Amino acid sequence: MKLSNPVKVGILGATGFTGEKLVELLVKHPYVEISYLSSRTSEKVCYSNFFPKLKKILDMDCQPLDIDKAVKVCDIFFLALPHTVSMEIAPYILKKKKKVIDLSPDYRIKDRKIYKKYYGKHHKDLYHLKKATYGLGEFFKEKIKQSSLVANPGCYPTSILLALAPLTIEKLVKPDIFVSSVSSVTGAGRKPVIEYHYTSVKDNFWAYKPFYHQHTPEITQILQMLSKRGFVVHFVPHVAPLEAGIYSTIYVRFTKRVEKEQLWRVYEKYYREAVFVRLREDLPKLKDVVGTNFCDIGFYLDQARKEAVIVSCLDNLIKGAAGNAVQNMNIMCGFLDEEGLL
Amino acid sequence: MKLSNPVKVGILGATGFTGEKLVELLVKHPYVEISYLSSRTSEKVCYSNFFPKLKKILDMDCQPLDIDKAVKVCDIFFLALPHTVSMEIAPYILKKKKKVIDLSPDYRIKDRKIYKKYYGKHHKDLYHLKKATYGLGEFFKEKIKQSSLVANPGCYPTSILLALAPLTIEKLVKPDIFVSSVSSVTGAGRKPVIEYHYTSVKDNFWAYKPFYHQHTPEITQILQMLSKRGFVVHFVPHVAPLEAGIYSTIYVRFTKRVEKEQLWRVYEKYYREAVFVRLREDLPKLKDVVGTNFCDIGFYLDQARKEAVIVSCLDNLIKGAAGNAVQNMNIMCGFLDEEGLL
Amino acid sequence: MKLSNPVKVGILGATGFTGEKLVELLVKHPYVEISYLSSRTSEKVCYSNFFPKLKKILDMDCQPLDIDKAVKVCDIFFLALPHTVSMEIAPYILKKKKKVIDLSPDYRIKDRKIYKKYYGKHHKDLYHLKKATYGLGEFFKEKIKQSSLVANPGCYPTSILLALAPLTIEKLVKPDIFVSSVSSVTGAGRKPVIEYHYTSVKDNFWAYKPFYHQHTPEITQILQMLSKRGFVVHFVPHVAPLEAGIYSTIYVRFTKRVEKEQLWRVYEKYYREAVFVRLREDLPKLKDVVGTNFCDIGFYLDQARKEAVIVSCLDNLIKGAAGNAVQNMNIMCGFLDEEGLL
Amino acid sequence: MKLSNPVKVGILGATGFTGEKLVELLVKHPYVEISYLSSRTSEKVCYSNFFPKLKKILDMDCQPLDIDKAVKVCDIFFLALPHTVSMEIAPYILKKKKKVIDLSPDYRIKDRKIYKKYYGKHHKDLYHLKKATYGLGEFFKEKIKQSSLVANPGCYPTSILLALAPLTIEKLVKPDIFVSSVSSVTGAGRKPVIEYHYTSVKDNFWAYKPFYHQHTPEITQILQMLSKRGFVVHFVPHVAPLEAGIYSTIYVRFTKRVEKEQLWRVYEKYYREAVFVRLREDLPKLKDVVGTNFCDIGFYLDQARKEAVIVSCLDNLIKGAAGNAVQNMNIMCGFLDEEGLL
Repeated sequence: MKLSNPVKVGILGATGFTGEKLVELLVKHPYVEISYLSSRTSEKVCYSNFFPKLKKILDMDCQPLDIDKAVKVCDIFFLALPHTVSMEIAPYILKKKKKVIDLSPDYRIKDRKIYKKYYGKHHKDLYHLKKATYGLGEFFKEKIKQSSLVANPGCYPTSILLALAPLTIEKLVKPDIFVSSVSSVTGAGRKPVIEYHYTSVKDNFWAYKPFYHQHTPEITQILQMLSKRGFVVHFVPHVAPLEAGIYSTIYVRFTKRVEKEQLWRVYEKYYREAVFVRLREDLPKLKDVVGTNFCDIGFYLDQARKEAVIVSCLDNLIKGAAGNAVQNMNIMCGFLDEEGLL
Repeated sequence: MKLSNPVKVGILGATGFTGEKLVELLVKHPYVEISYLSSRTSEKVCYSNFFPKLKKILDMDCQPLDIDKAVKVCDIFFLALPHTVSMEIAPYILKKKKKVIDLSPDYRIKDRKIYKKYYGKHHKDLYHLKKATYGLGEFFKEKIKQSSLVANPGCYPTSILLALAPLTIEKLVKPDIFVSSVSSVTGAGRKPVIEYHYTSVKDNFWAYKPFYHQHTPEITQILQMLSKRGFVVHFVPHVAPLEAGIYSTIYVRFTKRVEKEQLWRVYEKYYREAVFVRLREDLPKLKDVVGTNFCDIGFYLDQARKEAVIVSCLDNLIKGAAGNAVQNMNIMCGFLDEEGLL
Repeated sequence: MKLSNPVKVGILGATGFTGEKLVELLVKHPYVEISYLSSRTSEKVCYSNFFPKLKKILDMDCQPLDIDKAVKVCDIFFLALPHTVSMEIAPYILKKKKKVIDLSPDYRIKDRKIYKKYYGKHHKDLYHLKKATYGLGEFFKEKIKQSSLVANPGCYPTSILLALAPLTIEKLVKPDIFVSSVSSVTGAGRKPVIEYHYTSVKDNFWAYKPFYHQHTPEITQILQMLSKRGFVVHFVPHVAPLEAGIYSTIYVRFTKRVEKEQLWRVYEKYYREAVFVRLREDLPKLKDVVGTNFCDIGFYLDQARKEAVIVSCLDNLIKGAAGNAVQNMNIMCGFLDEEGLL
Repeated sequence: MKLSNPVKVGILGATGFTGEKLVELLVKHPYVEISYLSSRTSEKVCYSNFFPKLKKILDMDCQPLDIDKAVKVCDIFFLALPHTVSMEIAPYILKKKKKVIDLSPDYRIKDRKIYKKYYGKHHKDLYHLKKATYGLGEFFKEKIKQSSLVANPGCYPTSILLALAPLTIEKLVKPDIFVSSVSSVTGAGRKPVIEYHYTSVKDNFWAYKPFYHQHTPEITQILQMLSKRGFVVHFVPHVAPLEAGIYSTIYVRFTKRVEKEQLWRVYEKYYREAVFVRLREDLPKLKDVVGTNFCDIGFYLDQARKEAVIVSCLDNLIKGAAGNAVQNMNIMCGFLDEEGLL
């Protein structure tokens, strides 16, 4: 059942993992019409030729980006583009009074020096960078509603911030936090390299970019924004033989003795209205969230030692990217958060 | 090429994951003859009927345990038995002057109260518990040589101790250590339960027993024994969709500023002679060690913050169990550590 | 968007793989309310306790079967029960004038002797067996519309019949057909046995029940019903390390020289209106259909030798079971075939 | 235990899947010294930098091919090179009186027209093509012993020929044979393409090159050579989510009524001395042979219909490539077939 007057969306970068997932979600969304698809293809190609699973479902063209054409037919754009590319394109769309949900990191980091350090280029659109809203609906819903440029959070930050923010806002945990996260290979993008060949990933597991992954400053920036305090997050990401998912294991030490019920109440305070956060009495398993827009959170508290392990998991391409972006679109358009996502 | 006068070994519990791996390794060992195999089977069965991959290689019988018969035909026993079962059987074998390498946890924990707490039963063989040698050849080689009862280390402890011991002995790290480890499903034993059904493990990932896994006291006991100091290890194990391997990510804070070269020298000091420890300049990947008896160790140092991540990986059934047990047998028999293991 | 006056459905056997998939599909179906869930559980349990991924989505009870209670609250029943159990329960439901879609094989085989031979028990409900409609909507839509008992086809038969039926009805192929199919492990049901342990399935592949799989007579019965001729199908099923899917490779010899376009026209003749059959110009890959209710069919013709390979694939739990059952429900209720399935 | 006067081997193409497996096997071979490794690398690189699992085991250089240098230091060469490359290099080595085991298809197909048709280039070394021996030790052992150029069989042909040859030589089966084989992705070589990305292979399955795979003429040529009769093999290969292995399902019709014992006797007649062929009373599973040089064969006979399914499986990189090549080397050097392979 599609609405008669749907929101017209364009997806730029439609053949990457994130773009593909956006299409999969939006093609089922009752209030949306996919009106424009672009990718790095050198000529117009039927989208379902790239993804035969969509044959009979979405047999429209995917084309090299023609931004003038695109802004004429769409109300809102999802940019599933590589970092440093989004900031070249977003300003033009915004000038044309169309809305942008950027899934790249280009509008997440407010400090231009940190952006330069982690993404290797000077930021080219400081004007919009300043105005962009961080698209974590669970904490910035009102801002997102009024925003025409939403910076969709990174996959790791979403899982880690949803687990940590209530505790940091309530000043319950010490500012030194250790996080070990595990991600599926789709986090690295669809690249034809030996490192992601079937035989390289299967049966394998490895840590990478310990302490210096580019999502680290994103996490600390948002924690600071929410909690008005500085945090040091010692973050070690890993790759596991998974197609979907992120599983974050977070080690916190409390500033004082806390009880299990107290932690529960804190989480409930912040997530009572949050459709897509599920507090779990046990430790969640990754497969509980794969294929969904949920982030499941559980914890184990050692009361005597005033420490806890919090685990938080989500589907890196859904709640960690495309699903959360659709949730942002829903908020921006005045729909229910969960429209098209359950 | 088999030796003319081989060591005769018996494997009790030969059809579990660990027992199976012992057989696979020992059948190729040039100085060993497998002389006895037992399992929970109700009657004598050809071992290669359980494991058709061994047809033409080891078509001998596997039988219900007849310990009298067994001690007559073997010089040395590998006990690949469940915890609390080994301590019922080992004393009899030792009385008959045969040697025992116990792969269960029964002779690892010296403190009987801790054993009771973590394994649920009172220890029944305190006499041998006291005399048993912890079978980590990289640190206790001389003791193992003279021992007739070796407690083969747990899989997680092997990966964590090899990474941590040099640093703790040298008093370089603070006594508060966080460890996040990831294991394959074979760590849980061969059990016909839905939790380990193909569809339950594939695409999944989960944390379990945070802070209270039974390997935690084993790790701290050995660290203390080696370093003469107490340590608190905050240990969170996970299960990943893997058939083999353990990958430990260890977060340490240094007592003082250290340099990369200094850390290298410390590791080299302890592992110069250790055939099966490989220091890696990069962070190892799990697949580098799967199917081998190696433990690969790499680290990333943040000099300014005086902290590091150390990663350590091994094959949980080989260096983490059967391979290390064979290494112990080699030491006990006066062979080269690596005999039959390269 | 749920309808105001939904169809009330009951799912018996709701915790098996097929029952679980039925719930997943029906919970999203706009015209359906799930009103009753039963399983072998000994007492009432919240369904999302079995399947935490459904928390916040379907937190209703699953209970031991109380058939009197069930028929009071439901209009239509899905029986996801083991063979020989369905035929004990269906008659009662039918007597109460409620409709039944049986996903077991109990009402598929019309010949009671063949049923006995392949399923090991005498059929106990010959009255309804005779009246039951074979639920392959692509060929029996009108009958299904008027039926109150639909025998949902087996997974292998669905993939094979959709590929073969047009050719056999048109008398194009010789009556001797060889089929090699590959299935995921979920075809065997959710059983806690070592044979389906993660380590037993991963990296493995095997043939089973060659020539004598119980789906063989189902295939030949329907081919005969549709084509008025006898066929011998030499069928060899296999298990691959897959969680979802069936891939059938069918070798046919033609009675006369045929051309590619001719084959296309034949398929198009039968499937022009069939939403869920996709004719493919290339050979489909399994992942094109996993998670969907589509059956994709492609072929390679050797014109000179008058032979072809036809490949046909589907998701064994969706088009091969639960999805097709929902499609049958849609037909029985007068909805569009694809309602809730795209 | 290494021999004092080992055979010196060179491996050209040492970083492909096959070359890597050759190294793994030969480094453990008691009578062999690896003396030369080359690959497409642009400069000398330590081999264990490509494959860190070999650190401390084989830390020698791998270099761009310098054939003059290579022939000086080696007695025998393994060519793990792409088709059409081997035939450029082999003549030079042979001229220098060194032996060659070619793992490419270049010297398998005796008919130059067929070579051109399937491999796209004219054959450039007809002189040696004529003299080359097909390296299937189970049937051509005497010839291999005396040969200085052995064409190591293709992976599919090895599995299919070992299953079929005894039956065709004994004139038991009709000349029309259908074969459906399933292979791991390593059969396609180590290529950085999206088709073999982890997410493209996992959960997937597909048929390719039906009837026209380049191994088809190799199979029929050898069957004809052995049986003095023509055969038509209708061969459909598939790719499954596997890292290792080939599983062939072969459908044969008998020329007369045969009994199970009779088939057994036929196989035993040909394989009594064949160390690496295992006749199985049941149908083998792929994992029974993965990691080994065995080919396991089982069958199911339908006596009444005078037909059977024969299944045959092996590790595509071992018995299907590198292991069989080492077996050939053993034969050429007068060692036991199984030396270094058990």
